[in-house]
Amino acid sequence: MSSDKLLQQIAFIHEIDKLKYIQRKTRLFNSDRRENDAEHSWHLAMMSLILAEHANEPVDTLKVLKMLLIHDVVEIDSGDVFLYDTIVNHDNTIAERKAAERIFGLLPEEQAKEFIAIWEEFETGDTAEARFARSMDRFEPILQNVSNQGGTWTEYDVPYDTVMQKTSKIQHGSKVIWDFTETLIDDSVEKGYIRKTDDQ
Amino acid sequence: MSSDKLLQQIAFIHEIDKLKYIQRKTRLFNSDRRENDAEHSWHLAMMSLILAEHANEPVDTLKVLKMLLIHDVVEIDSGDVFLYDTIVNHDNTIAERKAAERIFGLLPEEQAKEFIAIWEEFETGDTAEARFARSMDRFEPILQNVSNQGGTWTEYDVPYDTVMQKTSKIQHGSKVIWDFTETLIDDSVEKGYIRKTDDQ
Repeated sequence: MSSDKLLQQIAFIHEIDKLKYIQRKTRLFNSDRRENDAEHSWHLAMMSLILAEHANEPVDTLKVLKMLLIHDVVEIDSGDVFLYDTIVNHDNTIAERKAAERIFGLLPEEQAKEFIAIWEEFETGDTAEARFARSMDRFEPILQNVSNQGGTWTEYDVPYDTVMQKTSKIQHGSKVIWDFTETLIDDSVEKGYIRKTDDQ
Repeated sequence: MSSDKLLQQIAFIHEIDKLKYIQRKTRLFNSDRRENDAEHSWHLAMMSLILAEHANEPVDTLKVLKMLLIHDVVEIDSGDVFLYDTIVNHDNTIAERKAAERIFGLLPEEQAKEFIAIWEEFETGDTAEARFARSMDRFEPILQNVSNQGGTWTEYDVPYDTVMQKTSKIQHGSKVIWDFTETLIDDSVEKGYIRKTDDQ
């Protein structure tokens, strides 16, 4: 029995293999090797399992996991966007929406709808699950940068204000993790990984 | 507030980054590049979300996801074991048990216990969730081999009987997926990717 439905599911499973080729700017812990989106998605899923107790509000762990496992699948078509990119706006661009429709559209209709809805919920960030999932997405690169003598902060010379502006959104998902992040950022300033401008 | 508990959790999150360096024998779809354990774990997690409806018995999706996300973490210490290895027995070796205790032991006690128990449940394979999770772990390399003109079957000259012996366990988790797999294997024999011995 190999129904059309199963064949559609297999086609999707094939297609998302491409996520393993999408390179991020951030590097593995204590490493020069860049992380790819599939590894990143796995690591965030693990982090959400481990850290869920620190979410500001109780979260549906299964939904958070689904969000994190699929959140970057659109980048197969639209490419990785760097958090500190000064030109491209990451938030739910038209290209990403089209990518979601094409890629999740490979699945049987009900599943396609479910995954597009979960991806949109993550992107919009208005639910407890989305806020917590998004805080994981911001937190991982901080741990990586700290372990890589500043990592992308140093490599792209990202100023303190920008780091704070982007990373402070972690507090919407977890105040506990944001408090911890602040100590990491302070420490990174002290070590010269992040530069404060003169007037600060 | 950076409690000891959070620091233990962060130490674990650091440690499991090493899974991204553990190379498997199988290669990405239509590719020469070998898959690593973190990418593999992500892909299996995605497959279980997509294919859960084909499980023989109803499964707790969250538990299946946890199993698949962590099932290879022990390989950080004990290394990847190839399914068709004729010498090393994969099943729950002493080295893997020690690895589970060391790596999950980095976590706060309650979480360490939970994850070791989930890993053991997966390894033992006696529950509906473990049977289905294990069928995903067997199914992914088949799809990869088919897309790679036989992949590891050809590369390691694995005979038909051995392929059948190892892969037929898929039916314990999903008869639907096993039926589909059999068509893939038959097709692979026809194309010369898998050799049948003369007396068959």
